Amino acid sequence: MSQDSTLAALTASEAARQIRDGEITSQELVQGCLDRIDALEDNIGAWTHLDREYALAQAEAAQDRRQAGKSVGPLHGVPVGVKDILDTSDMPTENGTILHRGRKPRDDSAVVARLRAAGAIIMGKTVSTELAVYSPGKTKNPHDPNRTPGGSSSGSAAAVASFMVPVAVGTQTNGSVIRPASFCGVFGFKPSHGLIPRTGILKQSPPLDTVGVMGRTLEDTALMADVLIGHDARDPHSRPMAAPQISRIMAEEPPLKPNLVFIRTPVWDQAEETTKDAFRELCEHFGDLQIMDLPPIFDGALEDHRKIMEADLALSFAKEYRDGKDKLSKVLCEMIERGQQVLATDYNDAVSRITDYQAEIDAIIHVFDAILTPATAGEAPMGLDATGSPAFCTIWTLAGVPALTLPILQGPNGMPLGAQLVSAKGDDGRLFRTARWLLDSLDEE
Amino acid sequence: MSQDSTLAALTASEAARQIRDGEITSQELVQGCLDRIDALEDNIGAWTHLDREYALAQAEAAQDRRQAGKSVGPLHGVPVGVKDILDTSDMPTENGTILHRGRKPRDDSAVVARLRAAGAIIMGKTVSTELAVYSPGKTKNPHDPNRTPGGSSSGSAAAVASFMVPVAVGTQTNGSVIRPASFCGVFGFKPSHGLIPRTGILKQSPPLDTVGVMGRTLEDTALMADVLIGHDARDPHSRPMAAPQISRIMAEEPPLKPNLVFIRTPVWDQAEETTKDAFRELCEHFGDLQIMDLPPIFDGALEDHRKIMEADLALSFAKEYRDGKDKLSKVLCEMIERGQQVLATDYNDAVSRITDYQAEIDAIIHVFDAILTPATAGEAPMGLDATGSPAFCTIWTLAGVPALTLPILQGPNGMPLGAQLVSAKGDDGRLFRTARWLLDSLDEE
Repeated sequence: MSQDSTLAALTASEAARQIRDGEITSQELVQGCLDRIDALEDNIGAWTHLDREYALAQAEAAQDRRQAGKSVGPLHGVPVGVKDILDTSDMPTENGTILHRGRKPRDDSAVVARLRAAGAIIMGKTVSTELAVYSPGKTKNPHDPNRTPGGSSSGSAAAVASFMVPVAVGTQTNGSVIRPASFCGVFGFKPSHGLIPRTGILKQSPPLDTVGVMGRTLEDTALMADVLIGHDARDPHSRPMAAPQISRIMAEEPPLKPNLVFIRTPVWDQAEETTKDAFRELCEHFGDLQIMDLPPIFDGALEDHRKIMEADLALSFAKEYRDGKDKLSKVLCEMIERGQQVLATDYNDAVSRITDYQAEIDAIIHVFDAILTPATAGEAPMGLDATGSPAFCTIWTLAGVPALTLPILQGPNGMPLGAQLVSAKGDDGRLFRTARWLLDSLDEE
Repeated sequence: MSQDSTLAALTASEAARQIRDGEITSQELVQGCLDRIDALEDNIGAWTHLDREYALAQAEAAQDRRQAGKSVGPLHGVPVGVKDILDTSDMPTENGTILHRGRKPRDDSAVVARLRAAGAIIMGKTVSTELAVYSPGKTKNPHDPNRTPGGSSSGSAAAVASFMVPVAVGTQTNGSVIRPASFCGVFGFKPSHGLIPRTGILKQSPPLDTVGVMGRTLEDTALMADVLIGHDARDPHSRPMAAPQISRIMAEEPPLKPNLVFIRTPVWDQAEETTKDAFRELCEHFGDLQIMDLPPIFDGALEDHRKIMEADLALSFAKEYRDGKDKLSKVLCEMIERGQQVLATDYNDAVSRITDYQAEIDAIIHVFDAILTPATAGEAPMGLDATGSPAFCTIWTLAGVPALTLPILQGPNGMPLGAQLVSAKGDDGRLFRTARWLLDSLDEE
């Protein structure tokens, strides 16, 4: 790599330290990332809005601030990619649909405001699938341009995986953070539902919508989560409670050797044989790793998730469907049309079971430190007209529990494959501590 | 009144003081109330469960505790009536339906637990309409046995109005506290939605269900609210925030003369002519009282409330409907059947408008201290086969804003009639302070 590529390869944590200590400037780092983008973007298509001058102007302002001896945040001067369904007051936010082309929000989303307060450079807006559902954008998988990067946070995953930015923000209503992270070979974290506020973000389904983060290291992923977690009264699912301080807990030594359980989930049949083999091997690595199935109540979870998500899509995108149906994908129209038929009693019944699912996962995490489970059925499938199955994410999204995918496996064609760790709702810090231990134990081999 | 009747006539605040100071014992007070019940219950029918021995045993235990010099709560030794949809661990809770006959909950509802912690004697369970909806129980209006006491908290209102207990607990999903309080001539308070937890109370419709209180004085009503308000994480609508300290704020002098606005609401046509006259007179009393209409958005509020409540009844009472439809009233079955047809999109659309309604009321309360509006269309109607219209309560229940009815008016037949004061969500303390001022200004005449 050239000098600039070396800069683009820095982790967010290390880059922030070097900027703070005066070893590099934010302009140098941003320029390094821009060079990387210039070299790769035509083949990857991670960005839907990128203004090089404006990125450098932000970097200059950050550098001036540091030079003036003013306080700097934990991401000071570090470029971040932001999925194009998060409102930005100074960049378009087009939500992955031609219907919102040229849309210019007045205010920053809460997440973007927190990134700016932490000193981050908003590098640009990354590609989302159509309205953050299934219909893909232009992005290709950085490891193989003939394969999907996954969705809906396609651009964020591809940008981080190809060293265009060290970290990025995505969102997940079904599998939209974990799946592209698994397919692109980066860390992806979907925190407990309600921890990161959705204020100023395209609304799909309030009981499910979750902001997540991606990075190339566990530390960067934790750092991003810590910056974004915190109460916001404008999000009705946000609760005024102390933030979990993930980076701090992650750095602690587990009091006892963590006790993992491997869970196949009701969609185990959909896992590819090679995925099953990879997890068998991983289980063996940990010796006597217990394998269990979820209790029968979870057999209806995917159907519950479908009802909630489709009924909410039908309401959230009622205007788009009414005024611009011909400009929406067939797959989305069909989801909306199914959602229009869902009865309120069925919807509320499904929502009421969320706490039952949480209680069952609580009971598992009472005994085990984390659940180990596939992030995706296999490596990124060939083709760019779909984004792969989210089925291995659905249960954890519905239950609102924290999920973290680690890029530690490979598929049969050498593509990355994620191993997903899941914990109980609110146990985000311990999940990272367990992940840290798992990575260390693999390194020790 | 006899000696015992004099005791039954004490306010809760005064009775608690006299017990604390040793002027009377809790047994004397409870016996006084039991005598009153013995004299009147056959004609009123306020109670569905009453165990005289057990009430006296509770009083003896309270008295022992005081005698031993242990700490006493703000309701120490004072009998309270509890609507029979609030779970009690030591008394049946039958929810006003033959389908739940003999039901014995294992745990106290959060509200009953708080009453006990405050030292209250749980006198017994008061009559609720069928499943706290519209179909009446046995209760008659204490002012005229041929008229309805209102519902669904029929027994609580009648028990307080007839001096059987000084205070009681009810619940409101449409007009179930304000309406019976207006018809029976007592104070009724429905706090901001979420302030009093619904844990252990029959669930009808979570976005609407609200616990309320009744008393014969404003002070007692405030005292009861203060005892019951407070966060409970088991109720998803409860928020961890400081309680409003209603009694304290009520006792303060308003910094400026309160500025009321009279609002007719979209159901003004349903008000009886004599009610309209009574409010015209009341408005004149306050000189230049401004009269305004609600903005047009409220025209759909009653329909929104209907959709939410009926869809939720259909889910909450699905088991009762499935297994015991023949034992449910026709009116409830019809509501459930309509509720079964409500679409999730329509339900969620209606729920999403709740914050819009709140914002409009916020804007009014930004200018005025409180809204003055009828509590009911008129005095309690003749007949015991219905509980009267809740229409003047619907908007405020849907919006989740605090509402307080004051027994200061009379209908054409000399029956009591309430004047309802309403404020913005969370402004419960100021509402009582304004009510205090209003009562004082009427007294000064």
